[in-house]
Amino acid sequence: MTDPIADMLTRIRNANSVHHDKVEIPCSKIKTAIAEILKNEGFIKDFEVVPGKHQDVIRVLLKYGPNKEHVISGIKRISKPGLRVYSQKDQLPRVLGGLGIAVISTSKGMMTDKAARKAGLGGEVIAYVW
Amino acid sequence: MTDPIADMLTRIRNANSVHHDKVEIPCSKIKTAIAEILKNEGFIKDFEVVPGKHQDVIRVLLKYGPNKEHVISGIKRISKPGLRVYSQKDQLPRVLGGLGIAVISTSKGMMTDKAARKAGLGGEVIAYVW
Repeated sequence: MTDPIADMLTRIRNANSVHHDKVEIPCSKIKTAIAEILKNEGFIKDFEVVPGKHQDVIRVLLKYGPNKEHVISGIKRISKPGLRVYSQKDQLPRVLGGLGIAVISTSKGMMTDKAARKAGLGGEVIAYVW
Repeated sequence: MTDPIADMLTRIRNANSVHHDKVEIPCSKIKTAIAEILKNEGFIKDFEVVPGKHQDVIRVLLKYGPNKEHVISGIKRISKPGLRVYSQKDQLPRVLGGLGIAVISTSKGMMTDKAARKAGLGGEVIAYVW
């Protein structure tokens, strides 16, 4: 697997599109940090790290509206192993004018574009979620 | 009606969400220019201006995938009568990293962010479509 973060986002995107309750993803620190942001921003219900067959997995509990409305309408990987995308603190992207979030990997950890702007930090633009 | 463009976008958004084939909108030059962009960018099948009861109407033919997939996932009004939003030519917005478009009203007419960037023109940021 050349891009474990893309793999995580794809698993969530696919599970979400068919209204699964949960999805499991091979665990890593970075992926746990992304899951934490998705939870804090209200895109997923919750997540937990549980032992898997070979390694720990992140179990993500997906979230839908009362009539199965999607809470996540889209996820896009931005920076990729083959083409890293960085943003300076004063040029952090806005996703759909604030309707969505950008996940930024900064020197102080993974955070939303809004938090990075507040903290005055630039970083790698991991993904957009909206 | 204080914002005819918002009204147009809302009519399209609503008709699209319930999979209507078409939607009619009171006609204006600006709204026709927006419809033209939506057509050129593949977000709608077509549009035509037809006589209505009191004034001409724009009849927009909506577009869906073979399994009723939405071609338009979202529309957002950006500039509003109460809060106009303008963008300089070197700061034109990108919508979801190019997945969507921004409709820009420039001195040379209504165009996408991409066309405005190519033409070296800034303008009023009318809406995002993705």
